[in-house]
Amino acid sequence: MNSFGRIFKISIFGESHGRAVGIVIDGCPPGIALAEKDLEGDLARRKSGAKGTTSRREDDKPVFLSGVHDGNTTGSPIAVIFHNADVISSDYDMFKDVPRPGHANFVAKKKYDGFSDIRGGGHFSGRLTLGLVTAGVIAKKIINPIDVKANLIEAGGEKNIDKAIQKAIENNDSIGGIIECRSVNMPVGLGEPFFDSVESLISHLVFSIPGVKAVEFGSGFKAAAMTGIQHNDPIISISGKTKTNHAGGINGGITNSNDLVFRIAVKPTASISKTQHTINTKMAEMVDLEVKGRHDLCIALRIPVIVEAATAVVLADFMMINKTIS
Amino acid sequence: MNSFGRIFKISIFGESHGRAVGIVIDGCPPGIALAEKDLEGDLARRKSGAKGTTSRREDDKPVFLSGVHDGNTTGSPIAVIFHNADVISSDYDMFKDVPRPGHANFVAKKKYDGFSDIRGGGHFSGRLTLGLVTAGVIAKKIINPIDVKANLIEAGGEKNIDKAIQKAIENNDSIGGIIECRSVNMPVGLGEPFFDSVESLISHLVFSIPGVKAVEFGSGFKAAAMTGIQHNDPIISISGKTKTNHAGGINGGITNSNDLVFRIAVKPTASISKTQHTINTKMAEMVDLEVKGRHDLCIALRIPVIVEAATAVVLADFMMINKTIS
Amino acid sequence: MNSFGRIFKISIFGESHGRAVGIVIDGCPPGIALAEKDLEGDLARRKSGAKGTTSRREDDKPVFLSGVHDGNTTGSPIAVIFHNADVISSDYDMFKDVPRPGHANFVAKKKYDGFSDIRGGGHFSGRLTLGLVTAGVIAKKIINPIDVKANLIEAGGEKNIDKAIQKAIENNDSIGGIIECRSVNMPVGLGEPFFDSVESLISHLVFSIPGVKAVEFGSGFKAAAMTGIQHNDPIISISGKTKTNHAGGINGGITNSNDLVFRIAVKPTASISKTQHTINTKMAEMVDLEVKGRHDLCIALRIPVIVEAATAVVLADFMMINKTIS
Amino acid sequence: MNSFGRIFKISIFGESHGRAVGIVIDGCPPGIALAEKDLEGDLARRKSGAKGTTSRREDDKPVFLSGVHDGNTTGSPIAVIFHNADVISSDYDMFKDVPRPGHANFVAKKKYDGFSDIRGGGHFSGRLTLGLVTAGVIAKKIINPIDVKANLIEAGGEKNIDKAIQKAIENNDSIGGIIECRSVNMPVGLGEPFFDSVESLISHLVFSIPGVKAVEFGSGFKAAAMTGIQHNDPIISISGKTKTNHAGGINGGITNSNDLVFRIAVKPTASISKTQHTINTKMAEMVDLEVKGRHDLCIALRIPVIVEAATAVVLADFMMINKTIS
Repeated sequence: MNSFGRIFKISIFGESHGRAVGIVIDGCPPGIALAEKDLEGDLARRKSGAKGTTSRREDDKPVFLSGVHDGNTTGSPIAVIFHNADVISSDYDMFKDVPRPGHANFVAKKKYDGFSDIRGGGHFSGRLTLGLVTAGVIAKKIINPIDVKANLIEAGGEKNIDKAIQKAIENNDSIGGIIECRSVNMPVGLGEPFFDSVESLISHLVFSIPGVKAVEFGSGFKAAAMTGIQHNDPIISISGKTKTNHAGGINGGITNSNDLVFRIAVKPTASISKTQHTINTKMAEMVDLEVKGRHDLCIALRIPVIVEAATAVVLADFMMINKTIS
Repeated sequence: MNSFGRIFKISIFGESHGRAVGIVIDGCPPGIALAEKDLEGDLARRKSGAKGTTSRREDDKPVFLSGVHDGNTTGSPIAVIFHNADVISSDYDMFKDVPRPGHANFVAKKKYDGFSDIRGGGHFSGRLTLGLVTAGVIAKKIINPIDVKANLIEAGGEKNIDKAIQKAIENNDSIGGIIECRSVNMPVGLGEPFFDSVESLISHLVFSIPGVKAVEFGSGFKAAAMTGIQHNDPIISISGKTKTNHAGGINGGITNSNDLVFRIAVKPTASISKTQHTINTKMAEMVDLEVKGRHDLCIALRIPVIVEAATAVVLADFMMINKTIS
Repeated sequence: MNSFGRIFKISIFGESHGRAVGIVIDGCPPGIALAEKDLEGDLARRKSGAKGTTSRREDDKPVFLSGVHDGNTTGSPIAVIFHNADVISSDYDMFKDVPRPGHANFVAKKKYDGFSDIRGGGHFSGRLTLGLVTAGVIAKKIINPIDVKANLIEAGGEKNIDKAIQKAIENNDSIGGIIECRSVNMPVGLGEPFFDSVESLISHLVFSIPGVKAVEFGSGFKAAAMTGIQHNDPIISISGKTKTNHAGGINGGITNSNDLVFRIAVKPTASISKTQHTINTKMAEMVDLEVKGRHDLCIALRIPVIVEAATAVVLADFMMINKTIS
Repeated sequence: MNSFGRIFKISIFGESHGRAVGIVIDGCPPGIALAEKDLEGDLARRKSGAKGTTSRREDDKPVFLSGVHDGNTTGSPIAVIFHNADVISSDYDMFKDVPRPGHANFVAKKKYDGFSDIRGGGHFSGRLTLGLVTAGVIAKKIINPIDVKANLIEAGGEKNIDKAIQKAIENNDSIGGIIECRSVNMPVGLGEPFFDSVESLISHLVFSIPGVKAVEFGSGFKAAAMTGIQHNDPIISISGKTKTNHAGGINGGITNSNDLVFRIAVKPTASISKTQHTINTKMAEMVDLEVKGRHDLCIALRIPVIVEAATAVVLADFMMINKTIS
C-alpha cells in the first residue's frame, strides 16, 4: 500500500513524531550524480517558515543510507531518512477520544483498532511528503529535458495570495488553494492503456498528498460544457503540436508532445483554533473543540513542489517503461 | 499496465474491431452466485441505442470462459469475453496517416511504432469498458450492502440533458457532461495510506475510462475557496456521521462512513463529422477532415454505469484488503 | 495470484473441463511477427499422444482474441484461448468426497469451500500450461539469440527412458523424471537483487508447473559437498566465460554469460489405477480407491517444453527490465 | 525488484559497507506486540562468531524508525535499520578490476556499468539478510501456532558438522551444506494457483539468500525415481493427515495440513584465501588471486535462521491473503 511505481518504485515510511520519516527508491538507474545538496532547493520550497505555515521547525536534513556511492547512484535501492526533532507530542493526547473534524483521527483509530500513532497526524502527516520530494529530485534528473513546474495560482478563492493569507490570519481560520502544474518539453507516448493512463497515475499519486480533493487535466471541468469542435485541438505539426491544448497534452491517456497541464484543489487545513463541534467517542457525547498545536493555515503554500515531485516520479516511471519496448 | 487491483484484480484485453474484448478477474472469493443474466441490467445501461449514442449495434452478450461453475464463482480466475460482430473497419483506414484531433490515433501510432490496431480505436476503444462493467457487477455483490449509483447530472453545460442532446444533434456536434457518483451504506476504514487513498484509487480507475478529464471528491474545487471552519464537517455521532459532507466521505484518504461522493467531467466525443484541421503525417501537410463512421455524440450518456463499476471494483479490493488485518 | 512478471506479464485462466483455458500476455513489444502456426511446434511437443501419455485428445488449437494484427503483435495485451472439447466429466464426480492421494482434490475443496470445479483437476490441471507454452513461444522470439532447450534426462530412476516407460505400463503404475534445461548465448546481467535473482524467478515459475518438486542450478545439491576451490569457476575471459560452470551461469543471482543450467524433479503422476487408501470425507471413513479416467503415467514426458517456456518468459522479463536502466 | 510479498510486503535496502542496511515491512497488522529485544534471539543465531564464521564484528543492533508505538505495531510501515560499523573497505579495492571467482563482482560491475558499491559485496552482501531475519521475527508472530524450524543437517558432505568445519579450517578452504526446514501445525489451504504455489514462493524467497543453489520439497529429487504408488501419500484423516509425507505437506501447490518440509543446498563461500585463477578485466590478462579480508568459511552455518525467516514471511503473506476470501 505504501509503495508506488512499476520500475522507478518508491516506498514511504514514518510517522510525524516517530524517530524518522523516509523513503526507499528502487529501480533508479546507476550513474546519476546525486548529493545531499541536490535536495536543498526543493526541500526548502516544501519547508515551513513563510507567513501562513506552521511554526514547527525541522532542519529537514536528508540522510542517505544506501544506493549512493562516490557521488553517484549505484543502481541499488536508495534509502533516505529525515529525523524528527522538533516534536511536541503532548499536543495530541486528547485527539485519541476527541477526533478533529476534517482530520484522519477518527478513521485512523477505527482502521487500526486504536494502535495507530496519532501524534502529529502519525503516518497521515504531511511530513511524509519529505520522501516524495526526495524522489522527485531524482526523478527530475531522469526525465530531463522535461521541466515540471507547479505554482499556487489561487488561495482562499482569491488570485491575490498574500491578501488571502493575511485575511485568514486575521480571521484565525485556514484556507485552501488551487495549484497548476505544467510540464514542458514533453515527448510523445508516455502512459499506458488501459488502466495506467497519464491522468490515472498522476491523479493516483497526487491524491495521496494530504489535502488534495480534486484534479483536472487540460480544460478539465470546463470540457464538460464544451462541444467537440470547441474542445478538439487541431493538429498543426507532424510532431503532434496542436493549435490549442484543451486536452492538457494527453490523448487516449498518452502524452502527445504538448505541455502536460493539470490543476488540483487543496482544501483548507483541518486543524484550526476556532471552536468546532465533534464527539467524544469514549463518552459518546458532543463536545466543543479548539485545536491547539502548530499548524499551517494554508497548506497549499507548501504543496507545489510536492506536486512537481509526484509528476516527475510518474513521468520517470513511464519513461523507463517505454524503454522496455524500444 | 492493463491490470488493476491488489486482491480483486482485473486484467483487460481486446480491440474494438478484433475478435473479442474481455476481462480476467482474479482474486474473486468462491461461492458468489453468478449467472450471465446478472450482467444484463448493467450491460444494457452501458449499451448504445438511446438518442445521442452510436448506431453500432453489438449484442454485448458475455461468454464466461472460466471461474464460474454450477452457478457460483469457484475462486479461480473469471474470464469473460464479448465477441465483436458489427464491425465496419473500412471507416478507419484513412486515420493511419491523418490522425483525428482529440483522438488517440496520433499517440497510438507513435507509441506502438505503427503496429497498433487503430480500427474503431483499437485497444483505446470505449468498447473495452465492457469488461469493466462485468467486473463491476461482481464487485457490487461483494460490497453489498454498499450501494453505488452514478448519474449524468449535466450535459453540454445544461442541466436539461434531453434538450442538450437535441441541440447537439441539430448542430451536428458532440457534447460533454458531468457525472456524479454516490455510494451509500459506507463502512469506516476503507483506503490505504500513503499512496492508496480512496481518492487515489478511484481516480486511477475512473481516469482510465475514455473521455474522463477531471475528478473531484466532496466539495472538490469549491473546497479551494472555503475556509477551515466552513469546510470541516462536524462529527455528530460515534459512528462517524458528520453534519455536512464536504469531505465526500473521506478523511486522510480513508472512508469515514458518510456517503462517498465524487463528480467527473467527460469531454465531448472527439469523433465529429464537422470539418476539422489536422495533419497528414505521411505527406506532412495540413488537411481538412470530416470524420465518418458511427460515433456517440454524447459518450457521457453511457458512462454512469462504468463509473459505478470502477467504484465498486475499487471498494471491493479495499474491503478484501481490510480483511487481511482483521 | 494467477499472474506473473513485471513487464512481460502473463495472466492465466481456465479449468480443465470448463469452456476454455487461456492466457493474457501484457507488455509484449509491438512489431513481433506472430501467427498461430508459430505455436504449432511447441504445442505439439506438449501434447499427449506418445506412449505413457493420456488418451484425452484435444486439438489444442490456439485462438488469438487480441493483441495481434496483420501478422504482428500490436503492443496491446495478447489474449489466447484453447477450447476444451474432449471432456468426460462424469469420471470426476466421486472425488468430491473421496480425494485422490497425491492430488489437489482435498486442498482445493477446503480452500475454496467446496465451490472449486474439480472436473479434470479444474484450475489445477496441467492443461493450464497451454497458455504458458504460448507465452513461451513469444518470449523465445524476444530473447533471441538466447536459445533455451530442455530435455527429459531420466525417468523412473533410469537413464533409458523408453525402458522406464515400458516398465511403468507393465506395472500399471506412474513414474517421475528429471528434466535438464540449458540456455545458451546468454548475456551478462540478467536478474535482480535482492529478491528477484535468476534462481528466484525461474524456480517461482517452474514450481507452478504441476508435478515439479525440486529445482537445482549448476552443481545444485552436489555443491553442498564441495569446497570453495572445487566449486568456484575460474574466470578465463573478459566476457566472463569460466573454465567450469558449477554456478550454472549465475553469480549473485545474475547471469554471467555462461550457459544457464538447471534441473528439476517431476514426481510420478498422482492418478493411478492401482488401489490406494484415502478417506471419504463425508462419511469420515477409510476407503480404497482405484482412479479411473485418462491420465498420463509419466507427465514428465510432456514437461520439457513447458520448462523452456517458463525459462523464456523469465528471461524475456529480465531483458526488458534491463532496458529500463540502459 | 528489491521487494517481496503481496500483503505482508518487505522492501530491502543497503550495502555491506554503506551507512546502514535495513528493511521496510508494509502490510503488517496493527496490535502485534513488538520490541527490539524480540529480535535478539534470531539475530544472534544469524550472527558471526562461531568457528567457521567471519571475524567481522557488528553489534547488529536494530533501530526501529517507524511502525511501532507503545510496544505494538501500528499498522503503518515498519522500517528497521542496522548501522554498519566494523568496516574495512580497503580490502575490496582490487576487486574492481579483478573479479573474484564465484562472486558477484563481475556481474555487478557489468550490470551497473561500474557504479555499484562493491565494498564487502555491496548490495549483494549476506548482510542484507539482517532485514529478512527482522521480518521473520514479526512473521513468526503472525503465523503462530505454526512453528518453523531449520537446521544445518550436513556440511562439506558430512553429517558430522564440527568435523567438517575443522577439516575446512585445516585445508584453508570453504565448504557448503544442506539445511532442512520443517514447519509444524500447518493449516490446510495456504498457497495460490497457478503461479503462486507454496513451492513457488518459498523457493523465490529462499533463492534470494546468497549461496543457495537448490531447493527440494518433500521427497524432492528422490520423487523422480519413485512410482505413483510409492510416492502418493495415503490420506488417513478428515483433517488431511497422511500416512507418509512424500509431498512435503503440499498438494497442487497448496498446504495440506501435514508438516511443510524442504531442504536447500548452500554452496561453499566464494571468498577463500587459496590461490585462484581469474582475469584482470582492465588489463585483459589472466591473474592469480588470493582473497584477503574476513569471510565465513561455511556460510551455511548462519543460514538456518534466515531460511526460517523466509518461510515465515511467505506463510504470513499466504495467511493474510487467505483471509480476503473468508
